[in-house]
Amino acid sequence: MSADLRPRVEQAVRHVVDRLVPINVSARHLHIRADHLEMLFGPGAQLTKLRDLYQPGEFASNETVSVVGPNRRVFERVRILGPVRSITQVELSYNDGRYIGLELPARISGDIEGTAPIVLIGLRGTIQLPQGVIRALRHVHMSPADGVRLGVANGQLVNIKTVGPMSVTFHNVKVRMGDTLRLEMHVDTDEANAAGLGTHTLGLLL
Amino acid sequence: MSADLRPRVEQAVRHVVDRLVPINVSARHLHIRADHLEMLFGPGAQLTKLRDLYQPGEFASNETVSVVGPNRRVFERVRILGPVRSITQVELSYNDGRYIGLELPARISGDIEGTAPIVLIGLRGTIQLPQGVIRALRHVHMSPADGVRLGVANGQLVNIKTVGPMSVTFHNVKVRMGDTLRLEMHVDTDEANAAGLGTHTLGLLL
Repeated sequence: MSADLRPRVEQAVRHVVDRLVPINVSARHLHIRADHLEMLFGPGAQLTKLRDLYQPGEFASNETVSVVGPNRRVFERVRILGPVRSITQVELSYNDGRYIGLELPARISGDIEGTAPIVLIGLRGTIQLPQGVIRALRHVHMSPADGVRLGVANGQLVNIKTVGPMSVTFHNVKVRMGDTLRLEMHVDTDEANAAGLGTHTLGLLL
Repeated sequence: MSADLRPRVEQAVRHVVDRLVPINVSARHLHIRADHLEMLFGPGAQLTKLRDLYQPGEFASNETVSVVGPNRRVFERVRILGPVRSITQVELSYNDGRYIGLELPARISGDIEGTAPIVLIGLRGTIQLPQGVIRALRHVHMSPADGVRLGVANGQLVNIKTVGPMSVTFHNVKVRMGDTLRLEMHVDTDEANAAGLGTHTLGLLL
């Protein structure tokens, strides 16, 4: 390429690279309250780490439960993500919900008011939760510094485009900002399948 | 609104309305060759109409088969769409494929070369197809007149945006033109779930 084009090309490439967002696919999983953990796994039960997740402090635990839907179909070995939280919340894809007899609402994590009841079966006990099963609304985590660089605010809805032969642009992706959060978009398996995404990939914040 | 704005508003609305595309969701289904139909349902078997589909001449038949994957999991009552065709082809979502043990390739209908074998079970017989199971690549049917109006050519890849809280833009949507075809986009259940689409909806060709 000619010498005087180079700066413009470099600028264009930098513009794209600066707006790349890692995308990770959330398989079905749950978060759990300490008292529910004890009801499922016995008094004094703790989550034990299988592996760290991308967000600092978050981990996949060795502990799994069976999740039973209203039609009595079961997902076995649904993994608990740690650390323990203030609410117990099961996150399934819409397709998963259909399989166990639920029309899942798309909710941001933590917003479980009025959602369907669900049964959890652990090694040492069973709970019938009065509510707490959602389809997680797609979202992108980031630090305030990422927000400044990308020009977006906490809670804002943004557009993120995937690449590849089955490329889609996800609209209405909610920004969830936190001091300790790393830049990362979360999609569920339905969204990953629709876009033909593998486990780890990159999107472009438009 | 002021009188002199009205023509511009009407023009803008017309522009959008002109580019609306009906979107229908394809659940898992199959097309079938006449000889395979006879192997599954007995000599002289014919497809009988359950209901017409949106495309002229196409129909959902009363006939269903069980589809068995390599892991021996089964989808029961998978519907045959008529009329009979020159190839037998099973169309599943990517998620369906995972369930029965297949990593499905995204293919345009009819392009089954090198795809996985699959077992079909009918009322009167069973076939092990050497190949013929795909994930249907998203596409939009239209007539040549639609193509002229929308400014697109047969085989072209276009972008179609859905509306609603889980809006997505599907990129690389293949135009499949034919004299008898009606304007209609087909997505699979993964794509419908990702976009939060109901059975009948509208998208906007960008």
